[in-house]
Amino acid sequence: MELARIVARHSGMKLVAAVSDKWAGRSLGDMLPLGGMACDVRCVSQSEASSTFSGVGVVFLCTPAEVSIALAGEVLAAGARVVDLSGGFRLAAELYPRWYGFAHGRPDLLATAIYSMPEVTENSSALRTAGLVANPGCYSTASALAVLPLLRAGVIEREGLIIDAKSGTTGAGRKGNEEMSFSEVEGDFRAYRVLKHQHTPEIERALAMAGAGSAPVTFTAHLLPTRRGILATAYGRLRPGRTGTDAAAAVRSFVQSRPFLRAASPDAVRLQAVVGTNRALMGADADPDRTVAVGFAAIDNLVKGAAGQAVQNANLMLGWDETAGLDSLFGSMP
Amino acid sequence: MELARIVARHSGMKLVAAVSDKWAGRSLGDMLPLGGMACDVRCVSQSEASSTFSGVGVVFLCTPAEVSIALAGEVLAAGARVVDLSGGFRLAAELYPRWYGFAHGRPDLLATAIYSMPEVTENSSALRTAGLVANPGCYSTASALAVLPLLRAGVIEREGLIIDAKSGTTGAGRKGNEEMSFSEVEGDFRAYRVLKHQHTPEIERALAMAGAGSAPVTFTAHLLPTRRGILATAYGRLRPGRTGTDAAAAVRSFVQSRPFLRAASPDAVRLQAVVGTNRALMGADADPDRTVAVGFAAIDNLVKGAAGQAVQNANLMLGWDETAGLDSLFGSMP
Amino acid sequence: MELARIVARHSGMKLVAAVSDKWAGRSLGDMLPLGGMACDVRCVSQSEASSTFSGVGVVFLCTPAEVSIALAGEVLAAGARVVDLSGGFRLAAELYPRWYGFAHGRPDLLATAIYSMPEVTENSSALRTAGLVANPGCYSTASALAVLPLLRAGVIEREGLIIDAKSGTTGAGRKGNEEMSFSEVEGDFRAYRVLKHQHTPEIERALAMAGAGSAPVTFTAHLLPTRRGILATAYGRLRPGRTGTDAAAAVRSFVQSRPFLRAASPDAVRLQAVVGTNRALMGADADPDRTVAVGFAAIDNLVKGAAGQAVQNANLMLGWDETAGLDSLFGSMP
Amino acid sequence: MELARIVARHSGMKLVAAVSDKWAGRSLGDMLPLGGMACDVRCVSQSEASSTFSGVGVVFLCTPAEVSIALAGEVLAAGARVVDLSGGFRLAAELYPRWYGFAHGRPDLLATAIYSMPEVTENSSALRTAGLVANPGCYSTASALAVLPLLRAGVIEREGLIIDAKSGTTGAGRKGNEEMSFSEVEGDFRAYRVLKHQHTPEIERALAMAGAGSAPVTFTAHLLPTRRGILATAYGRLRPGRTGTDAAAAVRSFVQSRPFLRAASPDAVRLQAVVGTNRALMGADADPDRTVAVGFAAIDNLVKGAAGQAVQNANLMLGWDETAGLDSLFGSMP
Repeated sequence: MELARIVARHSGMKLVAAVSDKWAGRSLGDMLPLGGMACDVRCVSQSEASSTFSGVGVVFLCTPAEVSIALAGEVLAAGARVVDLSGGFRLAAELYPRWYGFAHGRPDLLATAIYSMPEVTENSSALRTAGLVANPGCYSTASALAVLPLLRAGVIEREGLIIDAKSGTTGAGRKGNEEMSFSEVEGDFRAYRVLKHQHTPEIERALAMAGAGSAPVTFTAHLLPTRRGILATAYGRLRPGRTGTDAAAAVRSFVQSRPFLRAASPDAVRLQAVVGTNRALMGADADPDRTVAVGFAAIDNLVKGAAGQAVQNANLMLGWDETAGLDSLFGSMP
Repeated sequence: MELARIVARHSGMKLVAAVSDKWAGRSLGDMLPLGGMACDVRCVSQSEASSTFSGVGVVFLCTPAEVSIALAGEVLAAGARVVDLSGGFRLAAELYPRWYGFAHGRPDLLATAIYSMPEVTENSSALRTAGLVANPGCYSTASALAVLPLLRAGVIEREGLIIDAKSGTTGAGRKGNEEMSFSEVEGDFRAYRVLKHQHTPEIERALAMAGAGSAPVTFTAHLLPTRRGILATAYGRLRPGRTGTDAAAAVRSFVQSRPFLRAASPDAVRLQAVVGTNRALMGADADPDRTVAVGFAAIDNLVKGAAGQAVQNANLMLGWDETAGLDSLFGSMP
Repeated sequence: MELARIVARHSGMKLVAAVSDKWAGRSLGDMLPLGGMACDVRCVSQSEASSTFSGVGVVFLCTPAEVSIALAGEVLAAGARVVDLSGGFRLAAELYPRWYGFAHGRPDLLATAIYSMPEVTENSSALRTAGLVANPGCYSTASALAVLPLLRAGVIEREGLIIDAKSGTTGAGRKGNEEMSFSEVEGDFRAYRVLKHQHTPEIERALAMAGAGSAPVTFTAHLLPTRRGILATAYGRLRPGRTGTDAAAAVRSFVQSRPFLRAASPDAVRLQAVVGTNRALMGADADPDRTVAVGFAAIDNLVKGAAGQAVQNANLMLGWDETAGLDSLFGSMP
Repeated sequence: MELARIVARHSGMKLVAAVSDKWAGRSLGDMLPLGGMACDVRCVSQSEASSTFSGVGVVFLCTPAEVSIALAGEVLAAGARVVDLSGGFRLAAELYPRWYGFAHGRPDLLATAIYSMPEVTENSSALRTAGLVANPGCYSTASALAVLPLLRAGVIEREGLIIDAKSGTTGAGRKGNEEMSFSEVEGDFRAYRVLKHQHTPEIERALAMAGAGSAPVTFTAHLLPTRRGILATAYGRLRPGRTGTDAAAAVRSFVQSRPFLRAASPDAVRLQAVVGTNRALMGADADPDRTVAVGFAAIDNLVKGAAGQAVQNANLMLGWDETAGLDSLFGSMP
């Protein structure tokens, strides 16, 4: 839904088809407050999906990991390029059984996939020719942004990273179960999949790819009683001689010339400031007495953590400015 | 759940059995923050329910209407008395097909059932010997309390009553479906079952039984983005010569010597003041220029609108003070 | 804030100045997720406001009613046109003492002001030359949209209209007081300013101006535990022979060729569908047994109920398409 | 408010006086859903407070730290005992300038104060004769419960403790400011007073007093968009050979014979399960690959984190069972 809304307003893109079993037969304009031609695009069911792939420039897959793995080859065979928003192409093949519970069915395609968090992995030339791009997960995006400035500037050690992340309910997708019902979630807060979350190896991979070395990360996900947004609070061991000033400077330096990143004081890194936008708000501080630095990053899980970043990746694949169609998004509150 | 908590703390009652397919085999103390012996009561499945009825004083049925209709006879045959919290015994038999979608299977039992909202129907002598008591619905309780003071005091006409009611999500019971998911309900507000809500005829019946005459009522239910509480806003046609002062006085007079009712100014009739308690907060005002009076009532839908009122009815059935086990309930906020 | 965001993205407008005591000296890009040149506009304090008026096409006044009344003359004298978002120019002069608590200081200007709810008042030729336009209040907009289709189509009588409206907290503006604190509002719901709300005469005026006759309206405002959105539920007396089908048809007919209005079934008229957009969602039904019709309208109080409608009015003043800069707004949830 | 409600229902206590400038002249029964004699207690203003101290057994001070420091001596001089709920007697005197911004005015009294978190400090004999008891803060209570089981059982090292805590808005007290308004907090989440929170030294002290050794702790507080409850997520360095099984066993062992503590799996440690009660829910797990253990504790910040624990301390001071008046509290949701 979010992706359709962004693509429909993107002046360089034309939304030509939408696949959804749930909404099959309905036009996008019925379901979304869209203007323009995208209104009239009628959803087709997944069984008809293949017919929509040919002649299309980019297909965005917003499907479960196993479905993405099955569909990506079809899309590529039809001559289109793929941005996959699932976890289907994010890890090394050997990690799928442990973290996703299945063996990867297309290790050949996986080997060609480019994992791209534009501000972090910075492989824009590879993106230009890539057929298959793996769009990062929302937790991984927020987590990497919370720690990378501190790692790159040498403020913290690579070992002992701890990321305590909190997400709104839309991170779980749209579905009905008692656990995600309003009566259960409102007024509540808790962790989930403790020490077992499948974003843990993705974060480790993202940091390794970003040149930040290779070491295990401790990651905990929590469920916030709100719909949108992720805040990642990251703790690292302060390197000798480093201070809170160094930590804040590392963030300011990192956001330079990255149009979607903003530096702020830690108390101002908040969900309301990013919800509805493709922006990340970031901050950091350190306490030499406790030999610790704390980094924060806030994003909208559905935009910068999913659909917005997917469009950002598509922009780079197509050789466009990465902000095209994204710079004018804004949230529903200041 | 709420009923178990209230009964477990009621010094005159002993919770001896609990029936639940979902929680079969688990003890109440595992699921609820209970003290005392009730902790050790282990739930049995519905197929074993009959074995729990004999030797028991009162059985509370918190089942769907059709299940209550089927079970009530069994309970009575076992020698226990029944307080039914469903809609199974609230209407005249001929209304069930239209409002509940089925023909009533036990019109014989229905004919013996006493519909009891203690502050309104005032049939305590009948309750003393009743075998089967129909506990009012949450919307009906709030709605009757919003209009009855004005009707009884002759402040408004009987014709043209409009009740605009708003309820938290727990009114819908515990279940998982997309419509009641946090992502759908948070930040949202809407009406539902417009002009088709099954509480409409119940409200009309409650008012008729309360001696307030017989006339159609317009009732609209809305879903609030909160868990607990109902606010009913009622509009009636002001009778000639009546004023806002009369409206407020009617409420103050009505709450006299009714221990769970409190009068307040209309702006102070709010959910936070009643959630967690068996109380109703009530207020009214009128505008002679517009020939209208407005009445308000706020209750906790799970306590005064369900479990608390059921215990209040059981207290009266057993000849006890109606406040037993209920006067010390208090909510989670002032 | 909301207005600045909309104007900054409007391709036909250029935001050249912003006045705010609170944010004086800060640039808009510091506070809002804006792109483009508007980022660099630096707020000036109100004492310097006059210097910003000359050479400007339209000044939007988002000030309290008394401040707007004082400033409007200055702006007009500087040669700019005014869209006033306050209640300063919405009523006949003689109503100000009762409903706003002060005598109107500029009845001369008030006499020239055009009250404009574009879908309702339809005075686009007058708007083309108007110097001073009074932008309707959020409650009045939602209320008029809930009843006008039914009135215009002759489905309901003019007498006995009742509007039960519910608004999110942003309707009260940004300020700190205990009553509006999170701890007081979350989990709560209540009415306020019962029978005394200043939008009552505005709604009556809007209906009269829309050719819907003149009769008193009963209006009640309630505070929802959410930030954005208003739902108005309106009750009218059904005219003989009219049905629910007529009510629904009246809404469908009314929204024809009005680009921001959408018809839906009453249960689908919900806040999530309009928050973040300039749209109104509307529905209606009727119950001949109870001689009543019910109309619903949902809007975003800050967009269609304030800033978006102000830009819509400015578009019409400038002879542009009324949707310019507004059609691509979309909310944060489907 | 919360304290008054608990004391009023405590069968061993009699609430004889209440001091409040804000509510001076009003009776408790006007403001709270209380039964019994406590209803009729009328608040007196702070200037009359001294007159209420004599002849009273225990005075609970729910005042700002500086006011508590000034009042405690007066209360003791009048022959009553004190449970202070502020931070006025929680730290060593030399820490006040840095963390509270003032020098402690009564170091003599501070030297006699007993800091008592009953499940942790276990000094019940000292409590029996104590004149002045410092009741722990809500964050300190949750934090200590999250880490102590792991420390005591030798599952984690003392060095490198990190506590990431999240609290509802009532932790900030009742007051009106824009930062705590509904429009700012709903849909938001952020950290505050990062690396500067005054509970940091209190947690360090509580752990030292609990025999868990002395080492710095890193503590971060976050503001949840809900009213009540704190969840503390604690990270410690896993000692060689220890596992997740050891972590879970440490919690189970710790809660044994402590009536208010319950063990649960980490995913089940949630706010809804404790809000409205004096209970703490606790859980832990570990990941040997990442050399880390994670501990969780959830409490109601106003009950176990303030008023409930204060009554628990008073029970112990008076030689009663620690659960008196507290075991039947229950929250508003399962």
